[in-house]
Amino acid sequence: MSQPLLPTPAYIDPVLRNMPEQHIVAVSQGLMANKDIISMWFGEGDLVTPEVVRQAAIEGLQEGDVFYGEKRGRMALRQALQEYHQRTYKVALDIERISGMASGISAIQLIFQAILQAGDNVVLVSPLWPNAAAIVELRHAETRYCELERHGHSFVLDKEHLFSLIDDNTKAVFINSPGNPTGWVLGDSDMQEILQLARQKRFWIIADEVYNRVTFDGVPAPSFVTHAEADDPVIIVNSFSKSWAMTGWRLGWLIHPPILSDEIGKLVEFNYSCSPGFVQRGGIAALQKGEDFIAQLCDHCRHGRDITIQALSQLRGVDRIMQPQAGFYAYFHLDYPTAQTDILTFARQIAETAKVGLAPGSSFGPRQEGWLRLCFAQNPKLIAQAFDRLNDYFNSL
Amino acid sequence: MSQPLLPTPAYIDPVLRNMPEQHIVAVSQGLMANKDIISMWFGEGDLVTPEVVRQAAIEGLQEGDVFYGEKRGRMALRQALQEYHQRTYKVALDIERISGMASGISAIQLIFQAILQAGDNVVLVSPLWPNAAAIVELRHAETRYCELERHGHSFVLDKEHLFSLIDDNTKAVFINSPGNPTGWVLGDSDMQEILQLARQKRFWIIADEVYNRVTFDGVPAPSFVTHAEADDPVIIVNSFSKSWAMTGWRLGWLIHPPILSDEIGKLVEFNYSCSPGFVQRGGIAALQKGEDFIAQLCDHCRHGRDITIQALSQLRGVDRIMQPQAGFYAYFHLDYPTAQTDILTFARQIAETAKVGLAPGSSFGPRQEGWLRLCFAQNPKLIAQAFDRLNDYFNSL
Repeated sequence: MSQPLLPTPAYIDPVLRNMPEQHIVAVSQGLMANKDIISMWFGEGDLVTPEVVRQAAIEGLQEGDVFYGEKRGRMALRQALQEYHQRTYKVALDIERISGMASGISAIQLIFQAILQAGDNVVLVSPLWPNAAAIVELRHAETRYCELERHGHSFVLDKEHLFSLIDDNTKAVFINSPGNPTGWVLGDSDMQEILQLARQKRFWIIADEVYNRVTFDGVPAPSFVTHAEADDPVIIVNSFSKSWAMTGWRLGWLIHPPILSDEIGKLVEFNYSCSPGFVQRGGIAALQKGEDFIAQLCDHCRHGRDITIQALSQLRGVDRIMQPQAGFYAYFHLDYPTAQTDILTFARQIAETAKVGLAPGSSFGPRQEGWLRLCFAQNPKLIAQAFDRLNDYFNSL
Repeated sequence: MSQPLLPTPAYIDPVLRNMPEQHIVAVSQGLMANKDIISMWFGEGDLVTPEVVRQAAIEGLQEGDVFYGEKRGRMALRQALQEYHQRTYKVALDIERISGMASGISAIQLIFQAILQAGDNVVLVSPLWPNAAAIVELRHAETRYCELERHGHSFVLDKEHLFSLIDDNTKAVFINSPGNPTGWVLGDSDMQEILQLARQKRFWIIADEVYNRVTFDGVPAPSFVTHAEADDPVIIVNSFSKSWAMTGWRLGWLIHPPILSDEIGKLVEFNYSCSPGFVQRGGIAALQKGEDFIAQLCDHCRHGRDITIQALSQLRGVDRIMQPQAGFYAYFHLDYPTAQTDILTFARQIAETAKVGLAPGSSFGPRQEGWLRLCFAQNPKLIAQAFDRLNDYFNSL
């Protein structure tokens, strides 16, 4: 056989090729497995999936629940989701509006496959965890950021500004509430106003509500599910990852109009075929027996938040701390000039030198230099240790 | 709140909207859960995932292996894949060329995201299981079918015809060997010739080799892995589903040039984030301890094939039976006029009346009316029972 000459690589999409590495990936590159670093950079706490959930999956494996299954999730999962929403938000959802999905991000990927073409645009409320925007860009569509305003220690949505970004090519408005990294929560009356415009202009609202149960008082956050009629242009994304500490399981769900059911089914077939039966058994157990765990998680996060906000207020160089209303992140700003010009490098240095892993604000949309995100769903002792290290490091600067 | 008027739905991609239901979905709609029907329509046998594999996943769950993980699969999985290819095909693969993926179909979806834009085309060797073509169409690209010729009971690839379909907009040639539904196997010398052209013209070869271990003599089928140099434009798709009866697990892998590694990592992040750690543990156990099971599977399939081909030869109305060289499907043609004009309806009637689930040829590309696919990876008694029913039914026509 002749030697391959390889003058040029075969075709790779230039948007993908040129897309810079996500900064949250870049900051942790090669350091993820480093046990010396206290890991607070990712959207994942330190609690293990509850025993009752793991046991349900184990039984599925033992019983041979290992064959192909229904594309939008088995009926037992969808019914458990129906009951869960009845219990949690007092809404009676038609089962046709409920689809089990292979994680929140997978659900978002499929939704954008269904509604987005090159040349369209999507308005995203930011700062925002980065993957939704990346999916939009990879479909050669335009991202338009509606930045939350900072009033003191609170994020505030300027709805007029949001509405001004929407035009005839806007296929969706993407809203993550409770927000990552912001801890911002969209209120019910704002939801109603945005929904009203969506009904008139026929754009989709994609509501990423994966942190809706991670609150400090145990009360579920406001949800579009209590406002959207069956045929409204509203798609609600949720996941088992945060509420039941199931990040590694890859299971989520969608609430959507019945008009999307067939399309979602087709896209599941062409993307991943189905979710494992034994994983779905874990999901069903979480929905039916997971409220005690959620209460524990909320306590854990409230405790973590209190320690974190207090410690941040005493950390040298921190000049602004946003007050999270929900979720498990603190978002704060540094007055070091080098942090304000290149927060990625600054965060990388913190990880390498202070051995604390934090996510740079530049991961979360435009104009976030100087900001850092810290996940406080952690053991209080570990948080205290992290701040000891940060104090030493910042005092040395 | 005002009543939503819903004059038009919000935007849905018309290609997706208008894509007809897959015929393999249509034929089984509402009948999948019907236990009276002998299920031979899907790409799934009756063997349960081996105990040693399930036990490895159970241990992962017990040990709390439930957190986010590496995008292209954990190193232990990739190393096990490296050793597996060394053992199976005597090739030493650079670890950079190996990516663990969330199933074969997920791998194909991500590859087409990386290499395909609207207006491109992909040449697919057919008849072919339908999902790869659907993914191409959903990217608004063109599918070009290179139909295998039928010489007696054998499928034969006309390479001149294949090459004539390739032009400057051809981004990939998709080859599934051993073939579903054909049982056709591409030989080593043909692989070399196609590879030679791919090197010159710089199109990708996507080699779907998920049936490579499902052979009747236990010898692995020819693979592009023994021909492709590291930098060749060759992407090999494989899966744990068929070789180790892990259809419901959703785990697969890719062998690819190192130039694609970063792109695959990004796309995993934007599609599903990672595969569950406990699922990957199952995959590692399959690779390291699964050869006995594969030997059993090959015996099972050889036995199933022998009974099936023999029974088909005596079935009234069957006028052509293709001889599978590998895989677990029989593909055969009926001389009933109604089967030749609408095989979907004909297969649906077989399912409803004779209670045997078979896949209509119209699922597998153009000009397949009159053909049916039967999965014979089944218990011999069940196969015999299915043919009793088919005999009664066909004799009644």
